[in-house]
Amino acid sequence: MEKTVQMYEGKAKKVFATDDKRFCIVSYKDDATAFNGQKKGTIMGKGAINNRVTNHLMKLLEKNGIPTHFVEELSDRETVVKKVSIVPLEVIVRNIAAGSLAKRLGLEEGTKMKRTVLEYCYKDDELGDPMVNEYHILAMEYATKEELDLIAQYSLKVNQVLTDYLKDANIELIDFKLEFGKTEDGTIVLADEISPDTCRFWDSVSGEKLDKDRFRRDLGGVEDAYNEILKRLLGE
Amino acid sequence: MEKTVQMYEGKAKKVFATDDKRFCIVSYKDDATAFNGQKKGTIMGKGAINNRVTNHLMKLLEKNGIPTHFVEELSDRETVVKKVSIVPLEVIVRNIAAGSLAKRLGLEEGTKMKRTVLEYCYKDDELGDPMVNEYHILAMEYATKEELDLIAQYSLKVNQVLTDYLKDANIELIDFKLEFGKTEDGTIVLADEISPDTCRFWDSVSGEKLDKDRFRRDLGGVEDAYNEILKRLLGE
Repeated sequence: MEKTVQMYEGKAKKVFATDDKRFCIVSYKDDATAFNGQKKGTIMGKGAINNRVTNHLMKLLEKNGIPTHFVEELSDRETVVKKVSIVPLEVIVRNIAAGSLAKRLGLEEGTKMKRTVLEYCYKDDELGDPMVNEYHILAMEYATKEELDLIAQYSLKVNQVLTDYLKDANIELIDFKLEFGKTEDGTIVLADEISPDTCRFWDSVSGEKLDKDRFRRDLGGVEDAYNEILKRLLGE
Repeated sequence: MEKTVQMYEGKAKKVFATDDKRFCIVSYKDDATAFNGQKKGTIMGKGAINNRVTNHLMKLLEKNGIPTHFVEELSDRETVVKKVSIVPLEVIVRNIAAGSLAKRLGLEEGTKMKRTVLEYCYKDDELGDPMVNEYHILAMEYATKEELDLIAQYSLKVNQVLTDYLKDANIELIDFKLEFGKTEDGTIVLADEISPDTCRFWDSVSGEKLDKDRFRRDLGGVEDAYNEILKRLLGE
C-alpha cells in the first residue's frame, strides 16, 4: 500500500490517503501540545511509542469485541487504519478525579468516582472543544441516538478491558479520551489513539504519573515515563 | 401562619421558617445580580412582579399535572411554599440558542434548536455553578437516577405547558431555569421561581427582550419589560 496525499495534520499525527480508498496511513509525530495548543514542545520518541502502544491496545480491544479502525502496523511510526469519518466528539472516561474534572467539581485529584463518568466534548478547536451533553449532541446532530448509545456502551467496555489489563502492569487507569469514526457503511469503530498522550496512567504503587501530565505540568522525566509505559505493556 | 427565623437569603429572595414546619415563606427582593454575582443592581418593583408571575405560572403548571411547592400568595412579595430540600441542580431548558449556549456551540442567538435541550448545572457559587451531565450527577449523588428521570420529564412538560401558554400572550419562550425540591416524604416538586429573572422571554413579533437580559446587557427599559410581562400574563 502506498501513501498518496496528506489528508490531515493534527497536533500529534498526520493522516495520508492511500492507493486503496478503504484505508489511510497514520503517521505519529513527536510534537506535543497542551491546553488547546497554547503550550508546545517535543517529546523525543513519543511518536513511535504512541504508535506501538496504541496498536497493542487496539488489538487487545478487538479481541474483546470492540471494533476498531486498526488494520496493520507498517513501521515504528506508521500504521494502516480503516478510513472513517470521525464523529466530532471526544469521549472522556473517568474513574478517578483528575485534571479538569477535579477542578470543575471541587474534588481533590485522586478521588475515586462512585461510578465511571463519561463526558463528551464537541471537537472544535475554535470553540475550545466545549463540553456537551446528550441533548446538545442530538439537537446539533453530532451523532444520532443509536450512534451515541453504541459509543457510550463501547467506551464503558473499553474502560473495563483496559483497566483490568493495565492493573497487571501495575498501572492505574485514571481517565482517558476516545474518539470514534464511522466507516463508509456506517459502522461505528474506535479510532484515534490510546497512549500516554490521551490517558492518565498512574503507577499503582507509587502513584507516579506516567503520561502527558509530566509535560503539561513540567514535572520532568517525560521521555522516561513514555518509555516506561512501552516497557510495561510491550515488554521492551 | 407566622414567619419565624430567616433560613436563607439568596440573590433575589429570602426564605423564612414558619410556625408550621411543613411550610416556609418566600419573600422576593428587588435586588438583581448577574454573572454569578459580579454585577449588582436594583430593579424597582421586581420582587412583587416575580412573586406574582411565579405564582400565576406555578398554579397553571399544577393544573397541568406538575407538582410544585406553591401553597398560597400572602402579599405582593410574600408566598407560602412547601418546605423542601433543594436538589442542587439548575435545570436549563432551551428552545432557541441564546446566552451561554450560543457562545458555547458557536450559534447565532435566535437559532432554533432542532430538539429541546436540557442542561444541568451543579448549584455551587464557589465553583461557578459548573455544567454537569447525568454521569456526574449520579457519581456525585446530586440526585438518584429515578429523581433525575422525573426532573427531566417534568422539565420537558413545563416547557410544553409554558410555551403554549405564553404564545397566546405573544411571548416566545427562549430558555429558562428550573429548580426542584424534595419534600420530607421524598416527593419531587418544582420549586424556586419562574419569572423574567429566570426565563428569556422575547416578544413574538418584534423579538424585543422582556427579561433580565435587559439588566445583564444594559439595554435599558428593565422595569418596563418586567411590567410588560406582568401585564400580559395577569392582565394588569
